[in-house]
Amino acid sequence: MNAGKVYLVGAGPGDPELLTLKAVRAISEADVVVYDRLVPESILATIRDGVLQINVGKQASFHPVPQGEINEMLVRLARAGRVVVRLKGGDPFIFGRGSEEAEELERAGIPYEVVPGITAAQGCAAAAHMPLTHRGMASGVRYVTGHRKADEPLDLDWRSLADPETTLVVYMGLANAGEIVRNLIDHGLPATTPVLAVCQGTTPRERRVCTDLEALPKALKDVSFSGPVLFIIGRVAAIARDRNLQRNAQREERGGADSEAVPVVA
Amino acid sequence: MNAGKVYLVGAGPGDPELLTLKAVRAISEADVVVYDRLVPESILATIRDGVLQINVGKQASFHPVPQGEINEMLVRLARAGRVVVRLKGGDPFIFGRGSEEAEELERAGIPYEVVPGITAAQGCAAAAHMPLTHRGMASGVRYVTGHRKADEPLDLDWRSLADPETTLVVYMGLANAGEIVRNLIDHGLPATTPVLAVCQGTTPRERRVCTDLEALPKALKDVSFSGPVLFIIGRVAAIARDRNLQRNAQREERGGADSEAVPVVA
Repeated sequence: MNAGKVYLVGAGPGDPELLTLKAVRAISEADVVVYDRLVPESILATIRDGVLQINVGKQASFHPVPQGEINEMLVRLARAGRVVVRLKGGDPFIFGRGSEEAEELERAGIPYEVVPGITAAQGCAAAAHMPLTHRGMASGVRYVTGHRKADEPLDLDWRSLADPETTLVVYMGLANAGEIVRNLIDHGLPATTPVLAVCQGTTPRERRVCTDLEALPKALKDVSFSGPVLFIIGRVAAIARDRNLQRNAQREERGGADSEAVPVVA
Repeated sequence: MNAGKVYLVGAGPGDPELLTLKAVRAISEADVVVYDRLVPESILATIRDGVLQINVGKQASFHPVPQGEINEMLVRLARAGRVVVRLKGGDPFIFGRGSEEAEELERAGIPYEVVPGITAAQGCAAAAHMPLTHRGMASGVRYVTGHRKADEPLDLDWRSLADPETTLVVYMGLANAGEIVRNLIDHGLPATTPVLAVCQGTTPRERRVCTDLEALPKALKDVSFSGPVLFIIGRVAAIARDRNLQRNAQREERGGADSEAVPVVA
């Protein structure tokens, strides 16, 4: 039997229109799609009938499939001659452990391709009309994860992160928002640094909070987000605040909410 | 006459298959496409007949259209009722001054949408089978620009950048490679830090150099890249080196170069 092939595919931030053409092609060629919980229903709905779909993500009261088992599953399916799409939220090579799957495929000698995806930072920034870099405000952008294992402290270089010239994007930081904020302020980032927090960005359930660093933990408590949350911290976040408040005001003048309105808490 | 609309669209890193579905839709709705030199021919070829194409990028012996004129052009076309796609390499909100165009459109009250694009870091990493983050090697990733105005020194926070736990991606750094390398080493990044340099990533003319920080300027001199060049600096770059050398060795065993081979200098 011919060896199969694996595509490690980024599904983007949530909006199905933010899939790349290459991702769409890979999905159309697949015999099997292995997906996790960050891939929205609207994208799964595009998979053609007859394609085996395997959910390896966390669901309500179930645990996710351990990473080692996912790795083995990809190798086993490819060895059985299948064309496998491993569909992951965002970009497979920015957080999300796509790198560990690639490592396993290399070791097993399975042919694979990596299809990059729009990462949440890009999707949320575009939706909020807010740049990630801007002359005089942010000379660069940086992505870190605010997630940590069990009781370990967050292993981040806070002094390096507390750089007012760089837009700092924190993925999966909701549970540790207090610790992140305290450390950034202790290491010199001004407490008044603007922050945009986005929940389920680029989906119809997107919600945003525009606030500042010091007020972030309280603001998050007030809105009680559920689902993946992204923090975009830096001067550029003030642009999101101004533009979204203005847009919402224009909507109210036109007679209330419309389908494009995104809840914003200032 | 109805007011038109502007889409600020990321064309991605070069491979036309890395356009998003939303970018393709915006291009299909456009009356006018305003593009710059980083947008490849293969993408321009997808624009339907009858759509006005305006090149505002630098060409051989011509200067690019100044940013202020591009901003005014977008406003003028939209006010004349046109649907305008402003097509830019990569992501419009990561470098590339899309942010200044958005600012002008906001000021003029022109409706616009931002369509994110795969940025070069993502495209080049995926093509080289090299992650941007990886447990134990890189806890995050950071994008900066190595471009500077005239004779000014590079305005970067070197101490913060010289972080061995973070993958550092430098856009447009070719002309200043020596200065970048010297500063990173002076601020504590090991001279042996692996580096992947990619020219025209994700296109058929892609070329790669796998080297280390200290050897980068000499390696760049030897290959004399032409076209946009990206540096990916950090432990993860060693993965690119190992995987690409192995792949090229396998190709040689199979009897020489094939269409997928990408020149790599170790």
